[in-house]
Amino acid sequence: MAVAVIGVGMTKFGRDLEHQLPELAFKAVEDALRDAGISREDVGFVAFANVGGWSSEFFPLPIVCEYAGLNPKGGMRVEAACASGSAALAIACMAVESGYTDIALAIGAERMNELSTSAVVELLGRGGNFFWEFETFGLTFPAYYALLAKAYMDEYGASEGDLAKIAVKNHYYGSMNPKAQFQKRITVEDVLSSRYVAWPLKLYDCSPITDGAAAAIVASEKVASKLTDTPVWVKAQGIATAPANLTMRNDLLSIESAVEAAGQAYRKAGIDDPVKSLDLALVHDCFTIAEIIAYEDLGFARKGEGYLLAREEQTYIGGIIPVNTDGGLKAKGHPVGASGLAMIYEAVKQLRQEIERGRQAPIRRGQALVHNVGGTGHFAYVTILSLEKP
Amino acid sequence: MAVAVIGVGMTKFGRDLEHQLPELAFKAVEDALRDAGISREDVGFVAFANVGGWSSEFFPLPIVCEYAGLNPKGGMRVEAACASGSAALAIACMAVESGYTDIALAIGAERMNELSTSAVVELLGRGGNFFWEFETFGLTFPAYYALLAKAYMDEYGASEGDLAKIAVKNHYYGSMNPKAQFQKRITVEDVLSSRYVAWPLKLYDCSPITDGAAAAIVASEKVASKLTDTPVWVKAQGIATAPANLTMRNDLLSIESAVEAAGQAYRKAGIDDPVKSLDLALVHDCFTIAEIIAYEDLGFARKGEGYLLAREEQTYIGGIIPVNTDGGLKAKGHPVGASGLAMIYEAVKQLRQEIERGRQAPIRRGQALVHNVGGTGHFAYVTILSLEKP
Repeated sequence: MAVAVIGVGMTKFGRDLEHQLPELAFKAVEDALRDAGISREDVGFVAFANVGGWSSEFFPLPIVCEYAGLNPKGGMRVEAACASGSAALAIACMAVESGYTDIALAIGAERMNELSTSAVVELLGRGGNFFWEFETFGLTFPAYYALLAKAYMDEYGASEGDLAKIAVKNHYYGSMNPKAQFQKRITVEDVLSSRYVAWPLKLYDCSPITDGAAAAIVASEKVASKLTDTPVWVKAQGIATAPANLTMRNDLLSIESAVEAAGQAYRKAGIDDPVKSLDLALVHDCFTIAEIIAYEDLGFARKGEGYLLAREEQTYIGGIIPVNTDGGLKAKGHPVGASGLAMIYEAVKQLRQEIERGRQAPIRRGQALVHNVGGTGHFAYVTILSLEKP
Repeated sequence: MAVAVIGVGMTKFGRDLEHQLPELAFKAVEDALRDAGISREDVGFVAFANVGGWSSEFFPLPIVCEYAGLNPKGGMRVEAACASGSAALAIACMAVESGYTDIALAIGAERMNELSTSAVVELLGRGGNFFWEFETFGLTFPAYYALLAKAYMDEYGASEGDLAKIAVKNHYYGSMNPKAQFQKRITVEDVLSSRYVAWPLKLYDCSPITDGAAAAIVASEKVASKLTDTPVWVKAQGIATAPANLTMRNDLLSIESAVEAAGQAYRKAGIDDPVKSLDLALVHDCFTIAEIIAYEDLGFARKGEGYLLAREEQTYIGGIIPVNTDGGLKAKGHPVGASGLAMIYEAVKQLRQEIERGRQAPIRRGQALVHNVGGTGHFAYVTILSLEKP
């Protein structure tokens, strides 16, 4: 059974301690309900993406549902590390496809600044492999991705300047996105002169710590066709997991779970050549190197040539495939549980051509891809959205 | 599309710090795979129920999938407080019903003794409503349920002795269950003379802190009919949420979410009179009062008369409906994320008549109910299992 996204919503991302977690979630839900033209009573199931750990609330979904008036039709909290938002979307779609409900709501929210930066870095650091990597070697998340960057640069000859071009592009689009945490353009020189966080990654190679929420409402074919003229269909989803330990991976030049999830999604959607089939992609640029590796894992570039897309500016609008037209995690911000749904928000708005001037991609094929990675590739979710009913 | 449970597994519940979380999960998974007669490669999706907070692992699913050899077909962690196990089952069923996969695995595991008892009590206490109840009034979980017990006893005239009879029954069945944490019979006098934890609840009114894991494998009709002669069908599930705040509830004499979830499940399953339609029930007896309230919320007794079922021993085998033939959370143990799946384990084994002598209920209608509550009724999941295909 076909399932469509009929409404999306999100808060402005940034440092926001003025709003409690349920307030952030509510703002995104309200925005999505308005976008879908339905009321909260129409929602039959709620999946809530939240990694937590920074918040005092131990069971956040009930507080969110209570505040947003969604009782008694809640559901569960879902966590797939930084891919939690896509996991919530997957469950919401399954709830509709299985016939459990006609309309389901996926919410993602995070209030990360409740903790200090160092405490957030420690908590996320545990998310590699606690025992073998964090406790034994003291690895943090920038350090995990620094290992990938070093391996990639050594193997293929990419430079720190190539990585910097990802940050420059994403800040460029962030500068035009009123919901982005950073709305300031930067230069390659700004990136290269920023301080090292974990060599070769510098401050501007890293996504920030963010408070924010995003939501998507999905509906069955029957209901979607009644409610909207612009349904955006969830054409395919690929879901995969991989070892937490980096030492258990086959190599550091690729995210195995992302390759697997993309393969699943492309097969289901009948996509042979993604660059020729997609109008744009939102990819998981938690660090600049992650976006370059994503180009290869998703088949936008051949293995070892992803950095050339960055160098040649082929992932700007006008290039072979626009990527992260919302500023990406890098500039839009990365409230971990909300990030996957914020990507869905951007993909849906792009396909509907409702984006601000300057960052609306041309929509010719009517298809967009969302690539959402959890941990260092522990999880990967790849979603294909389409204007054409599957 | 009909979905059947084709295999179940669980560890012996108890205090078990000799096994890490992935080892506990693996033992339950291995048991379930053996029971289903399939191999891990046949599993297409994994939902992992885990509340966590006591463990150092921040993202436990990848570690569990890696250890159990389930990559790359993992999925997500799900949390619905102490109803997480049922939430994982719900998602596994939806993954099959939606056509995402033919065979899905729900796992629940918890290693609660990693923290001290007082730290566990503090963490769970936050699970009421952190801001309004835990931080402001210092309520812990026994205290929440003590409020319900006091209200119930005042309103209906139930005694501490009536509550004690629940503990005695559940220890009686626990004494015959080799997987139970406590395998010792107790008397009403033992309960009444145990120390107060939160008046009127005493030590023996409370479920223990437990390490353990449970798993269930579900399959599509087509696959189930090939793999087993004894499929146990998931006939209906009801899912509901309610305000976290006790002060926001209509009364303290009932768990609103459980009434809602039971209503949904009964409607879907076409059950008018549960006592006449079910062979047995597994209910969420985190405290003795919770089992008595469950009798009323589930329609086994009229409102205000649940304690009479306890007093008259009507929920033993031979009574009007056997309840918690495995010892319940009280005696079998309550590793929170695993508990819902351990109830499914018991219901499936009972329906298949594979239970030890003395605690096998007569199976005449071929239907069992599982009632799994999260928090103080933040969540409720009610599942109807049946030998008859829906």
